Amino acid sequence: MLPAAAGYDRAITVFSPDGRLYQVEYAIETVRRGTLAIGIKSKDGVVLAAEERAKKLQVHTMTQKIFQVDEHIGVAAAGYIPDARIQVDHARVMAQSNRLVYDEAADVETIAKNIADLAQQFTQYAGVRPYGVSLIIGGVDRNGGSIFVTDPSGTYLAYNAIAIGAGSDQVNDLLEKVYREDMSLDDACVLAIQAIYHVSEDKSGTKHIKMAVIDNKSRKMRRLTEEEVAKYAEIARSRGPVTQ
Amino acid sequence: MLPAAAGYDRAITVFSPDGRLYQVEYAIETVRRGTLAIGIKSKDGVVLAAEERAKKLQVHTMTQKIFQVDEHIGVAAAGYIPDARIQVDHARVMAQSNRLVYDEAADVETIAKNIADLAQQFTQYAGVRPYGVSLIIGGVDRNGGSIFVTDPSGTYLAYNAIAIGAGSDQVNDLLEKVYREDMSLDDACVLAIQAIYHVSEDKSGTKHIKMAVIDNKSRKMRRLTEEEVAKYAEIARSRGPVTQ
Amino acid sequence: MLPAAAGYDRAITVFSPDGRLYQVEYAIETVRRGTLAIGIKSKDGVVLAAEERAKKLQVHTMTQKIFQVDEHIGVAAAGYIPDARIQVDHARVMAQSNRLVYDEAADVETIAKNIADLAQQFTQYAGVRPYGVSLIIGGVDRNGGSIFVTDPSGTYLAYNAIAIGAGSDQVNDLLEKVYREDMSLDDACVLAIQAIYHVSEDKSGTKHIKMAVIDNKSRKMRRLTEEEVAKYAEIARSRGPVTQ
Amino acid sequence: MLPAAAGYDRAITVFSPDGRLYQVEYAIETVRRGTLAIGIKSKDGVVLAAEERAKKLQVHTMTQKIFQVDEHIGVAAAGYIPDARIQVDHARVMAQSNRLVYDEAADVETIAKNIADLAQQFTQYAGVRPYGVSLIIGGVDRNGGSIFVTDPSGTYLAYNAIAIGAGSDQVNDLLEKVYREDMSLDDACVLAIQAIYHVSEDKSGTKHIKMAVIDNKSRKMRRLTEEEVAKYAEIARSRGPVTQ
Amino acid sequence: MLPAAAGYDRAITVFSPDGRLYQVEYAIETVRRGTLAIGIKSKDGVVLAAEERAKKLQVHTMTQKIFQVDEHIGVAAAGYIPDARIQVDHARVMAQSNRLVYDEAADVETIAKNIADLAQQFTQYAGVRPYGVSLIIGGVDRNGGSIFVTDPSGTYLAYNAIAIGAGSDQVNDLLEKVYREDMSLDDACVLAIQAIYHVSEDKSGTKHIKMAVIDNKSRKMRRLTEEEVAKYAEIARSRGPVTQ
Amino acid sequence: MLPAAAGYDRAITVFSPDGRLYQVEYAIETVRRGTLAIGIKSKDGVVLAAEERAKKLQVHTMTQKIFQVDEHIGVAAAGYIPDARIQVDHARVMAQSNRLVYDEAADVETIAKNIADLAQQFTQYAGVRPYGVSLIIGGVDRNGGSIFVTDPSGTYLAYNAIAIGAGSDQVNDLLEKVYREDMSLDDACVLAIQAIYHVSEDKSGTKHIKMAVIDNKSRKMRRLTEEEVAKYAEIARSRGPVTQ
Amino acid sequence: MLPAAAGYDRAITVFSPDGRLYQVEYAIETVRRGTLAIGIKSKDGVVLAAEERAKKLQVHTMTQKIFQVDEHIGVAAAGYIPDARIQVDHARVMAQSNRLVYDEAADVETIAKNIADLAQQFTQYAGVRPYGVSLIIGGVDRNGGSIFVTDPSGTYLAYNAIAIGAGSDQVNDLLEKVYREDMSLDDACVLAIQAIYHVSEDKSGTKHIKMAVIDNKSRKMRRLTEEEVAKYAEIARSRGPVTQ
Repeated sequence: MLPAAAGYDRAITVFSPDGRLYQVEYAIETVRRGTLAIGIKSKDGVVLAAEERAKKLQVHTMTQKIFQVDEHIGVAAAGYIPDARIQVDHARVMAQSNRLVYDEAADVETIAKNIADLAQQFTQYAGVRPYGVSLIIGGVDRNGGSIFVTDPSGTYLAYNAIAIGAGSDQVNDLLEKVYREDMSLDDACVLAIQAIYHVSEDKSGTKHIKMAVIDNKSRKMRRLTEEEVAKYAEIARSRGPVTQ
Repeated sequence: MLPAAAGYDRAITVFSPDGRLYQVEYAIETVRRGTLAIGIKSKDGVVLAAEERAKKLQVHTMTQKIFQVDEHIGVAAAGYIPDARIQVDHARVMAQSNRLVYDEAADVETIAKNIADLAQQFTQYAGVRPYGVSLIIGGVDRNGGSIFVTDPSGTYLAYNAIAIGAGSDQVNDLLEKVYREDMSLDDACVLAIQAIYHVSEDKSGTKHIKMAVIDNKSRKMRRLTEEEVAKYAEIARSRGPVTQ
Repeated sequence: MLPAAAGYDRAITVFSPDGRLYQVEYAIETVRRGTLAIGIKSKDGVVLAAEERAKKLQVHTMTQKIFQVDEHIGVAAAGYIPDARIQVDHARVMAQSNRLVYDEAADVETIAKNIADLAQQFTQYAGVRPYGVSLIIGGVDRNGGSIFVTDPSGTYLAYNAIAIGAGSDQVNDLLEKVYREDMSLDDACVLAIQAIYHVSEDKSGTKHIKMAVIDNKSRKMRRLTEEEVAKYAEIARSRGPVTQ
Repeated sequence: MLPAAAGYDRAITVFSPDGRLYQVEYAIETVRRGTLAIGIKSKDGVVLAAEERAKKLQVHTMTQKIFQVDEHIGVAAAGYIPDARIQVDHARVMAQSNRLVYDEAADVETIAKNIADLAQQFTQYAGVRPYGVSLIIGGVDRNGGSIFVTDPSGTYLAYNAIAIGAGSDQVNDLLEKVYREDMSLDDACVLAIQAIYHVSEDKSGTKHIKMAVIDNKSRKMRRLTEEEVAKYAEIARSRGPVTQ
Repeated sequence: MLPAAAGYDRAITVFSPDGRLYQVEYAIETVRRGTLAIGIKSKDGVVLAAEERAKKLQVHTMTQKIFQVDEHIGVAAAGYIPDARIQVDHARVMAQSNRLVYDEAADVETIAKNIADLAQQFTQYAGVRPYGVSLIIGGVDRNGGSIFVTDPSGTYLAYNAIAIGAGSDQVNDLLEKVYREDMSLDDACVLAIQAIYHVSEDKSGTKHIKMAVIDNKSRKMRRLTEEEVAKYAEIARSRGPVTQ
Repeated sequence: MLPAAAGYDRAITVFSPDGRLYQVEYAIETVRRGTLAIGIKSKDGVVLAAEERAKKLQVHTMTQKIFQVDEHIGVAAAGYIPDARIQVDHARVMAQSNRLVYDEAADVETIAKNIADLAQQFTQYAGVRPYGVSLIIGGVDRNGGSIFVTDPSGTYLAYNAIAIGAGSDQVNDLLEKVYREDMSLDDACVLAIQAIYHVSEDKSGTKHIKMAVIDNKSRKMRRLTEEEVAKYAEIARSRGPVTQ
Repeated sequence: MLPAAAGYDRAITVFSPDGRLYQVEYAIETVRRGTLAIGIKSKDGVVLAAEERAKKLQVHTMTQKIFQVDEHIGVAAAGYIPDARIQVDHARVMAQSNRLVYDEAADVETIAKNIADLAQQFTQYAGVRPYGVSLIIGGVDRNGGSIFVTDPSGTYLAYNAIAIGAGSDQVNDLLEKVYREDMSLDDACVLAIQAIYHVSEDKSGTKHIKMAVIDNKSRKMRRLTEEEVAKYAEIARSRGPVTQ
């Protein structure tokens, strides 16, 4: 932080002389320091994965960072997780409301835009802080599978594959090199684990890996069991580190 | 920033001794640093163009900076894009409301004034920041085609051709030299691409160029396909750099 | 600004030890730096004129600083123009409401007082800034023609002839010397242009001059065409600089 | 201002260690620097007078500082005149409401207390500034003629003769010396002018003098015409400076 | 004020490290510097007295510091008198409401507690300042005569005799020495004047002395005429300075 | 106060780095400096006692620090007494509401929890200060006699015997040494006076001692008369200083 | 605290440049300094335990830190206990509402999420402070026994065994070493006491130990009597310090 930043970075309602919103940038820093989350779109579905570090006596079956918004939409979060919960609850209401009003499941982009619009509000009005979280919103709707990423600024963008959180720069480099649009959902799952191993300290265990998939056929989100994750991890380890 | 600025530039509700609203000027700086957006009025329609830089795995078919407000009105934005989305949603409601109340499509100026009035509110009341975005609002209504530009101060002005965002000074110089009111829509599209190439680092590709046109006959906004953009870009490249 | 000003000039709700409202004075400074606007009352009508500087590709037929409030009342503004728009919209509602409630056109002074009362509110309550604009409100009502000026402090005063904005001190000196109550509307129009030429850099063109008249007979505001302005400008130039 | 004042004089809601409300005192300073206003009670009526400095092209028939509240009550103001207008409007509503509710004209003191109560509110709650104006409220009710003075602190006091604004100390000294309760309304009018000449730079003209009377018989406020003021001024000049 | 006070004395909502509310103490200082007010309970009634300094042309019949709350309750105030007026108006409503709801006159303590409760509110919530006034509330109800004192902290206490305002320490010393519960109302009136003379600069005039009594029989507050005050003052002077 | 405290102790809504709420601690300091209050539970009732220092002419029959909440519940307060009054009024409404809703007298703990919950609110929301008072709430309900203490933090605890205010540390030491659960109400009354004498400057008078008892049989609070207090005080003096 | 923290740690609505919410971290420090609380899940029920330090004359039967939310859910708190009370009251309403709306007992996680959502709100909006308390929420629902922990950040996590408050790091180390999922409820009770003895100064008494259990069969929370605690403590002491 340059000395010039001092004073312009205390409130979301103050621009700096160079037109920046420091508080939003600091909130994005919160995301950057959160544990890794990944979303990959394959030709037959979408996979969401997240690294979750737990204490020894913590209950492992409870997932902290992967949420279900609707039957066909899931979310993987990085950053300040209590904020993610609030945004997901907001999205759930929106998704149900879509079903009630239009009698059909909400498009994934509709949900992504909605969360991003909510985030924007928290960058313009005094008396609040921006949300300190980014969400990878993956799902399958009438347009097929898609992945969107929202961030504290209120931006949302569509990706084929994306990582957020600590180590995401390296993982995104990796993904850009090896991702292919025609990869299978199974391969996408393996790639997600390879990506986590790429930057995680624990490069063989699976307890710190949580995953969920939404396949194009069923259009239903399903959390992977510990066994399934282990199976994909084994394949990942057998393939060795990703050479590019 | 002069030392004298310190203290008068922390809130939109404080004038500086020389009668300036620094926060509004800083918000305009946000626009100045946004990627380029262009609007050009031709004798048979209006063209909107924007440069969009994307990461490799980002989905290119999703446009970030060009929006449709109503059948006959489009918007190209520069600056803080989440703010643009909010303003566009606001304009959409206004446009629909115009159809409901008056049973006819809103004039382009009505929409522009409405967005500018909204922006003014965010320069006078505490507890908010100004919108950090400028919009080029192009459309065709009963008065023919027209282009308006709104900015964070709440000003709106009519132009025949205008660029906003990074490099806009150079592009506006260019436009002032080569623009003719009687140019065709096709030529306007080519000129828009020439203008982008004039300041962009990527002077031959088209993935970073998004365009939309509203022609005077149909009065309907239509996004150009990648192929159409490529075709205009080829013509642009064949004509060489604009000599003045 | 004296050092003593520091601290008392940050909010409209704080008086300085010498009983001044610095924020209001700074807002008046915004007016002083705005482009020139002029109002002149003649024996058969009122003329409003404003200098408007435009970029080359800006649409010249759109007037930025002269507004119509009601059939018989016009406004010329100097200062922060988005604020002027808000005040004018406010005045329009007030004028229509007057027609509805009393079944007659509002007096010019009623409108002027109303705008000034609105401006006063923005000098007494925290959380807002004063309006950074002055309006010349000219019109013809049952009492004949009249011209009022409002400013950011909430003051309104009646004048026979007045200029506001950059160069207004020199123009007002000029007006005081040459103004006669029995001058014709045509002469008032010529005088308005002479006044603009008196301080403007462009002393022969007319693109930067916008004018409107309300004559006593029709009691209707009418914007002058470019041709009419050019005609008066020719007379103005033929008469030479005003010798006093 | 002593250094100790710093910090306690920024808000009406903060007492200084010596129990003072600096912001209220600063608002009173605004009154002290306003142009002079005078009220004198005679045996057959009340006279209000004010000095009004105007620019050359200002319309002289419009009075800035003397207002009518009700048929039988007038006001002369010194200080920040836009605030006076707001207080007078407030008093007018109160006076009409009195007629509606009690079917009789409001007592002068009722109106004075009401304005003072309003002023008090603006000394106790954050988010506003005190009114920067004092009013001389003169009128004739069932108890005869009376004069009250309100100030920014919310105080109101009854006087036989009083001056407020710039030069009021000298004028009040003068009034204390020459005022007699049994003087005629005509003599009170002459005295008011003598008092203005006593401190004004312009010691013979009458354009800067505005006056109104409420005589005990008619109980109706009447503004003096320029001719009447001139007549009284002639008498005043003929009597020479007041020797005490 | 010790340096340590700095910072804790700017708002009523901030305690100092030693548990003090400085703003309340400063408001009490306002009372201490106000002109003297006195209340004395005698065996056959209560007397209220206040010193009021007036300018020469001020109307002497108008009392500034002694108010009537209800038939049987009066108030003498010291400090910021506009605040006293607000509290008294509040008490009047309360007293009338008591008559409406319970069909009987309010107890003096009920009124005192009510005013004190109001004052407490202004010591606990941000955005206001404490009331800068103390009231001596004297009256005769079904329990006989009584005197209560409220202050800016929201405290109320019952006294047989009490002085507040400038010089009150000396007067209270005097009262403690000479007060007897069995003194007559006449003697109490004389004592009140002696007390004022004890500290006032004007030790013989009566124009600066305002008084009111509520006798036990009639239970009605009555303001003393100038003649009555003069009569008691003569007795006071004849008795000479109080020797203790 | 350590230098590190500076800045974290200005608002209840700011934690210090070591997790403290300084404003709450300062409010507790207000209690510590208030005059002593005591509550003792005996086998046949509860006694409340408070030291009240009064000026000579103050009415002694009026108690400042002991309040009745309901027939069966009393309160002794230490600290900022106007706050105590507000809390007690709040408790009275709660107690009456309990009777209305459940048709039975409120439990003492219900009242204590209610007051503590109120106090908590004033430690978490901006714009207010914490209550600067502790209450000893004593009463007899269906569960027998009990004593609770609330403080500015919103804590409430049950005690057999407790002192709050100035000197409470020494008194609590004393109580811990001599208190026995099987002591009679009479002995508890004597002990309360012994405790006051233990730390008070006045070790023989009784005017500064106010007491109330709620005995288990009647379940009714009764204020002790001056004679009763004197009687207990005589016994207390006869027993001599408490030897431990 | 690094100097860089200064300024970013004064409000929950301000992120630091490294994306931290200092006020939330300070609130967590409040928890860390609170007295110890423990929750352990056994194969046939859940045990909650808390250390409570009391003064000698405090009533020991009243528990401060263990609360009942519903028949089947209990809470043990560490940190600022008045905040815990508020959260528990909130949870009670939620639990009853669940019974009303769905006609069944709330899941333990539902209650935990609800409290955590409440806590999140107090980290995002200005004008409040975060809750300074963590809760161990233990209960038995249709999914069996479970233990959740909420903290000031709004996070909630599931544990098999967990300690919060002072000394919790050491206790959690202990629990990680000796905890077995198949331990009996009796053994869990003994372990809880061993854990308290592990870090408490008092390593043999039981007055400072409060406990409650919810067994899987009855699904009812039951507070342990002093005798029961003593019994378990005896076993704990007989087993000696936990060797790992």
